[in-house]
Amino acid sequence: MIKVGIIGSTGYAGAEIVRLITQHKEAEVVWYGSRSYIDKKYADVFANMFQIVDAKCLDDNMDELAEAVDVIFTATPQGLCGSLVNEEILKKVKIVDLSADFRIKDVNVYEKWYGIEHKSPQFIEEAVYGLCEINRDKVKGARLIANPGCYTTCSILTIYPLVKEGLIDPKSIIVDAKSGTSGAGRGAKVPNLFCEVNENIKAYGVTTHRHTPEIEEQLGYAAGEEVVINFTPHLVPMQRGILVTAYANLKEKVTYEQVKACYDKYYKDEQFVRVLEKDVCPETRWVEGSNYVDVNFKIDERTGRIIMMGALDNLIKGAAGQAVQNMNILFGLAENEGLNQIPMFP
Amino acid sequence: MIKVGIIGSTGYAGAEIVRLITQHKEAEVVWYGSRSYIDKKYADVFANMFQIVDAKCLDDNMDELAEAVDVIFTATPQGLCGSLVNEEILKKVKIVDLSADFRIKDVNVYEKWYGIEHKSPQFIEEAVYGLCEINRDKVKGARLIANPGCYTTCSILTIYPLVKEGLIDPKSIIVDAKSGTSGAGRGAKVPNLFCEVNENIKAYGVTTHRHTPEIEEQLGYAAGEEVVINFTPHLVPMQRGILVTAYANLKEKVTYEQVKACYDKYYKDEQFVRVLEKDVCPETRWVEGSNYVDVNFKIDERTGRIIMMGALDNLIKGAAGQAVQNMNILFGLAENEGLNQIPMFP
Amino acid sequence: MIKVGIIGSTGYAGAEIVRLITQHKEAEVVWYGSRSYIDKKYADVFANMFQIVDAKCLDDNMDELAEAVDVIFTATPQGLCGSLVNEEILKKVKIVDLSADFRIKDVNVYEKWYGIEHKSPQFIEEAVYGLCEINRDKVKGARLIANPGCYTTCSILTIYPLVKEGLIDPKSIIVDAKSGTSGAGRGAKVPNLFCEVNENIKAYGVTTHRHTPEIEEQLGYAAGEEVVINFTPHLVPMQRGILVTAYANLKEKVTYEQVKACYDKYYKDEQFVRVLEKDVCPETRWVEGSNYVDVNFKIDERTGRIIMMGALDNLIKGAAGQAVQNMNILFGLAENEGLNQIPMFP
Amino acid sequence: MIKVGIIGSTGYAGAEIVRLITQHKEAEVVWYGSRSYIDKKYADVFANMFQIVDAKCLDDNMDELAEAVDVIFTATPQGLCGSLVNEEILKKVKIVDLSADFRIKDVNVYEKWYGIEHKSPQFIEEAVYGLCEINRDKVKGARLIANPGCYTTCSILTIYPLVKEGLIDPKSIIVDAKSGTSGAGRGAKVPNLFCEVNENIKAYGVTTHRHTPEIEEQLGYAAGEEVVINFTPHLVPMQRGILVTAYANLKEKVTYEQVKACYDKYYKDEQFVRVLEKDVCPETRWVEGSNYVDVNFKIDERTGRIIMMGALDNLIKGAAGQAVQNMNILFGLAENEGLNQIPMFP
Repeated sequence: MIKVGIIGSTGYAGAEIVRLITQHKEAEVVWYGSRSYIDKKYADVFANMFQIVDAKCLDDNMDELAEAVDVIFTATPQGLCGSLVNEEILKKVKIVDLSADFRIKDVNVYEKWYGIEHKSPQFIEEAVYGLCEINRDKVKGARLIANPGCYTTCSILTIYPLVKEGLIDPKSIIVDAKSGTSGAGRGAKVPNLFCEVNENIKAYGVTTHRHTPEIEEQLGYAAGEEVVINFTPHLVPMQRGILVTAYANLKEKVTYEQVKACYDKYYKDEQFVRVLEKDVCPETRWVEGSNYVDVNFKIDERTGRIIMMGALDNLIKGAAGQAVQNMNILFGLAENEGLNQIPMFP
Repeated sequence: MIKVGIIGSTGYAGAEIVRLITQHKEAEVVWYGSRSYIDKKYADVFANMFQIVDAKCLDDNMDELAEAVDVIFTATPQGLCGSLVNEEILKKVKIVDLSADFRIKDVNVYEKWYGIEHKSPQFIEEAVYGLCEINRDKVKGARLIANPGCYTTCSILTIYPLVKEGLIDPKSIIVDAKSGTSGAGRGAKVPNLFCEVNENIKAYGVTTHRHTPEIEEQLGYAAGEEVVINFTPHLVPMQRGILVTAYANLKEKVTYEQVKACYDKYYKDEQFVRVLEKDVCPETRWVEGSNYVDVNFKIDERTGRIIMMGALDNLIKGAAGQAVQNMNILFGLAENEGLNQIPMFP
Repeated sequence: MIKVGIIGSTGYAGAEIVRLITQHKEAEVVWYGSRSYIDKKYADVFANMFQIVDAKCLDDNMDELAEAVDVIFTATPQGLCGSLVNEEILKKVKIVDLSADFRIKDVNVYEKWYGIEHKSPQFIEEAVYGLCEINRDKVKGARLIANPGCYTTCSILTIYPLVKEGLIDPKSIIVDAKSGTSGAGRGAKVPNLFCEVNENIKAYGVTTHRHTPEIEEQLGYAAGEEVVINFTPHLVPMQRGILVTAYANLKEKVTYEQVKACYDKYYKDEQFVRVLEKDVCPETRWVEGSNYVDVNFKIDERTGRIIMMGALDNLIKGAAGQAVQNMNILFGLAENEGLNQIPMFP
Repeated sequence: MIKVGIIGSTGYAGAEIVRLITQHKEAEVVWYGSRSYIDKKYADVFANMFQIVDAKCLDDNMDELAEAVDVIFTATPQGLCGSLVNEEILKKVKIVDLSADFRIKDVNVYEKWYGIEHKSPQFIEEAVYGLCEINRDKVKGARLIANPGCYTTCSILTIYPLVKEGLIDPKSIIVDAKSGTSGAGRGAKVPNLFCEVNENIKAYGVTTHRHTPEIEEQLGYAAGEEVVINFTPHLVPMQRGILVTAYANLKEKVTYEQVKACYDKYYKDEQFVRVLEKDVCPETRWVEGSNYVDVNFKIDERTGRIIMMGALDNLIKGAAGQAVQNMNILFGLAENEGLNQIPMFP
């Protein structure tokens, strides 16, 4: 059994890792890290785990953790993983970091968008951006995985094939994204209260959201040129789910079949990316509770644009599920082990 | 007292007209038209009206109605108003049509996007598009008001000043809109069930939604040239509210102050359009239950685009409230009579 | 114009007082008290008030307030009003206290259930329990009004006629209540986050909720004997609304007509209490946004019990609306001034 | 592999059976019955099943089905299973009926509460009431399982130990139940529309709900005497989940430990019934997506009553999960096979 340690196991993403690993045949959680709830029974914080998890929450001692486990998931705020990791630790244990610390290769870009100093820039280069469907081979041999952001995973997988194949003008990309509220985390903040979120929709972080450079960098690799996008996230009164509606100018006239073939080229054999049938729009309800990303597109001949759409569960494919998928790749397991949950509806 | 007749008074928009008129000092509903509930007490259908409205629902006889009332609101499916109206009726009574029948000047465009034959094209020319803040003067003398759509009102008011003043490229406009579920009406359809809508977000009508040509026509008048846009509506799990996030390329570099001045030029004296303070994004919760539209914008120097945002209550400023506002103008009343409700939060 | 000061104007109940008074013809808010937001523009906290309220938030200085206003509403946590009020203040100004400080006549009961020491027990005796429909006459001459709790208002008005007329066994009363989440206030607490409340229902405070002795005391006055009840509140994933389902043993067999007559005896002339038609169950949606309480009942001959049901908007009739109703009575205004909003649906 | 046929596979309960069986190691769905969607691809109706289920919907031919499968689940309206079943079929195939047709032993009681004639009363006697934790042994040899109702399962499991052990007065039981909206089914009806259900709570079927006699019968077996209860269901704006709050008079004074021991006596070894720790109230969110029932209680010394609480997922333990659990028992499989999903939160 692979021994798993989680730093930040009482946030929503951390708790989802717990849930997934507890149902995983070849891994088990042995360290439930949580600064806020040290010594408290984990099942007292997340009562769904009553009679399932008997352990107590522990502190975030990464050195000690590195001795105790095979893989550490850091589901923590930006900056924490970067401040804890070192060569000694990386020699002993794999790290899958769910924060942004190692996602962006240019440390200046990171520091500018996140407004914090990076404490371990020396590991950025070797860190592998863990978008499994695209970087699977690089993940295999890595020590440190930068697990992609939720908006980012959805945006990139939705747009990637068309950028890669050069069908769209990469300067024209606009990503309008909508997220459920679990993406805002479990912190006690007024804007996340039920009465503030419910019966409301709003944009936030307009032109400044931190997932922007992450999307740009990854799409830039695909395009082979710099990509600058507009990315606008919105908060939706629902628990889980991200929907991306992306717009771009087609470089030249294309048929439905051509674009479909382009998506199929990259995703035909991917279990977790489902290219929907013609004219079916992705909906978050059809992926909720699963590791799937549903994608599709619509060509608008009137405007010469293409509308690309993608939907995923932000806590699974957008966080914990992808982290487990990366773990599976790292340890040579079946990539879908522990990730075959069928979306739950309603 | 102005006598009001409503055809379709038991839909959500019709019921909102009832609610607003019942609180209006100079008008009263004397005809609660509802094909589905003829002879049923209105308050048995909408129990909020218990002990407030004592009347029964009546049939949709427009000839008879024209004798009984001063103004008819048609809150009905497309095609109905067009099939009922005639010169005799228009001589006797004002009509505010909440359907799309008289919104689009080119009958071919109407018939193409709506897929139905127009039964009274002879009245299209004289009908006034009742977007009060823009067409106030034309509304005054009209007999037939085409009350704008909910998405349309929000989209146009959000974008209008920048198109009118030529700050943005009208060919580059993309409107990504999000709507609460009351916009889908009160019909008994599986896709509108609680369990289908709740905990979900989806796009629909991508590239084909019927409000597209309406937005294009009105923005075209402002631009003085043809406007072709992408319009993508989304269904959000909330009752009321529309949020529009619109993107366009700036023709040249502009400052915040320049754009702010542009919005102020058109809306400074408008009670119902609130241009928010710098960096404040419109949210539907802040306009719910009111006739307000909140608008704002954000310039993105990285991409040379501007993001324009607007929020309104789809049943009020997006339907019934604007209809009452038009009635007030038609009859020379204070334009805000019956429309001063403060947004209700939470 | 009556000058109104609000202590706690940035909580949900306080904000609702602001909204109602702003639409009141004979009163105006001149003091927006809020410890948390001193010197911040009120409309920056509640953006629905943008361009409607221009004032800034002020501190909670009750002595100064007493000079500046005619009536003070205290929409604050338990204990605060009790710690601030004194004879000097009460000589100058009316106080409507929305906390529990002066609701319970026996200070020992108060201190036991609330776990805090009462700082002004000398004013408990003179304070009038402001359940308008029952204590209207006493309210008229009062200086200090103890505005009833939300659960309490709903429970008492639902059960009162049957206790008063002796139709039910007062020892057998069970109140199972369900509340929207605005009742939990605007504090930043994990249990009130969207993701914790949404898609969930739970009981809380079982056998220990503080509204229990308040209901018992008031029903005891009606019964003319001690009343001991079970009261179980539940948290429902919605913004506003309380529904009470109450059970009691009928003392003897009664007909529908007898019970209906009993309710009508007390509520026939009350604008804000609507006794629904036979077999119609109260629903919170039909009173949302209004000062109404809808009540009804169902006799169960199989068990010899009666089920009594009531619904209200916890922020209006359960808090701010009733406070304004009390103010209207205190100042000799029409009792419904500023309170004629029709319930908003959907 | 056990071959499974489902009649009514496109309702919410039927779809949940599909989801559970698809993840079951020793069973597979071979017949997706759905009158409404014959010949339509199942995944076109429930798009979560895209690329997972490839089959088309079939008609409801039970004779043909009996040849094709080992077990039939009927997730259909009352009366259908009773009208289709016969001796020939029961000789060939096991039937797990999720409707009420075979739950009530007295056909007169069934016909009175359901208002329909029973077409196969001859099979009522042999049908086993499939509340697994209580009737496990009888289920083993059965041909026809009456799968309990959702409210019923929750109510009975919550109250059973105390009735069985004689701690409470069975004449005093009051069950106040709250259900998510998926319990209302997938029929296109106005009362189940999003805008009608959301932001609302209501009681319905007061004194007349059909699950009443089912609860009474089963608790009567436990009590060894007739049980007559009040049962009041409420509709809550959430997808899944039932919460039961039940009240009863204690026959004599008891301690927490005594009652806890009573619950433990029946549930200590039951995987799917979790007796929570002292003072922890069951919440639907902690069982959502799982086959668990969480139960607990609180003694009120003031009133001499006990409040019993239970929570389950109405589509799983309240329908499909329990049906699969029954199948597992019928076929000698591990009772929890396919049912080990951990509750999903948030």
